[in-house]
Amino acid sequence: MAEFDVRPALPQDIPAIVNMLADDPLGAQRESPDDLAPYQPAYQRVADDPNQHLVVAVHEERVIGTLHLTIIPGLAHRGTTRGLIEAVRIHADMRGHGLGTHLIRWAIEESRRQGCRLVQLTSDATRTDAHRFYENLGFSATHVGFKLKL
Amino acid sequence: MAEFDVRPALPQDIPAIVNMLADDPLGAQRESPDDLAPYQPAYQRVADDPNQHLVVAVHEERVIGTLHLTIIPGLAHRGTTRGLIEAVRIHADMRGHGLGTHLIRWAIEESRRQGCRLVQLTSDATRTDAHRFYENLGFSATHVGFKLKL
Repeated sequence: MAEFDVRPALPQDIPAIVNMLADDPLGAQRESPDDLAPYQPAYQRVADDPNQHLVVAVHEERVIGTLHLTIIPGLAHRGTTRGLIEAVRIHADMRGHGLGTHLIRWAIEESRRQGCRLVQLTSDATRTDAHRFYENLGFSATHVGFKLKL
Repeated sequence: MAEFDVRPALPQDIPAIVNMLADDPLGAQRESPDDLAPYQPAYQRVADDPNQHLVVAVHEERVIGTLHLTIIPGLAHRGTTRGLIEAVRIHADMRGHGLGTHLIRWAIEESRRQGCRLVQLTSDATRTDAHRFYENLGFSATHVGFKLKL
């Protein structure tokens, strides 16, 4: 596994992040790497919210992975704060080297650091490789994830 | 369906909310309605975050339902902000009267008002009645929900 740093995403990382979001059978249908306009205000909204942690993994100044962690306080489970992981992507050139594992472990440690006692995520039902990956990291597939497009 | 109002939860609503969270086969194992101490700081953390909308449904000054909506900005899906619904509960006396439907519809409308283009939630795989309920409201069970306790 190549060495890499995890750091907060900067505005200049937006193209690299969007390219990774789009480089995927599901992402290709819904992202627009040739039109970054919708991503700029979204980035700003994320950057302005202290509970959003949009990060990139960087190796030799190149962005090779991304992950978005949201810290969510709540009353359920005796007042458990939870970490929600979204939008995990590894650059196509860097897959299969354990970077995804390191990135998820980063999110778990950051969640713990922020006082979370639960980490959760959903994965598209068609991504069966991802499901094994999360189970190997200790996650349990206990829930059904529902989505409604507005 | 009895008329009811949806309003932000106040500190004095904590006992009623926790009682509803606990009055459920899963909740009974993990909530502590006789010890509200862990819920007070959690409530404060929710109340201090403008993206958290912990609400109660009230009928004749009685709390009969609760729902927690989190607004989550993000880059994925062309910069889609999403609404995440958690901790939906209806008081046992009031179930089967459509209150759950009204509460979820409130969360969908509030998400729309806040610029969301996606609403999501997870439901424990054992709650098959809840799954039908969400599908009837237009949600699609497209994802697997993973949890990791810390």
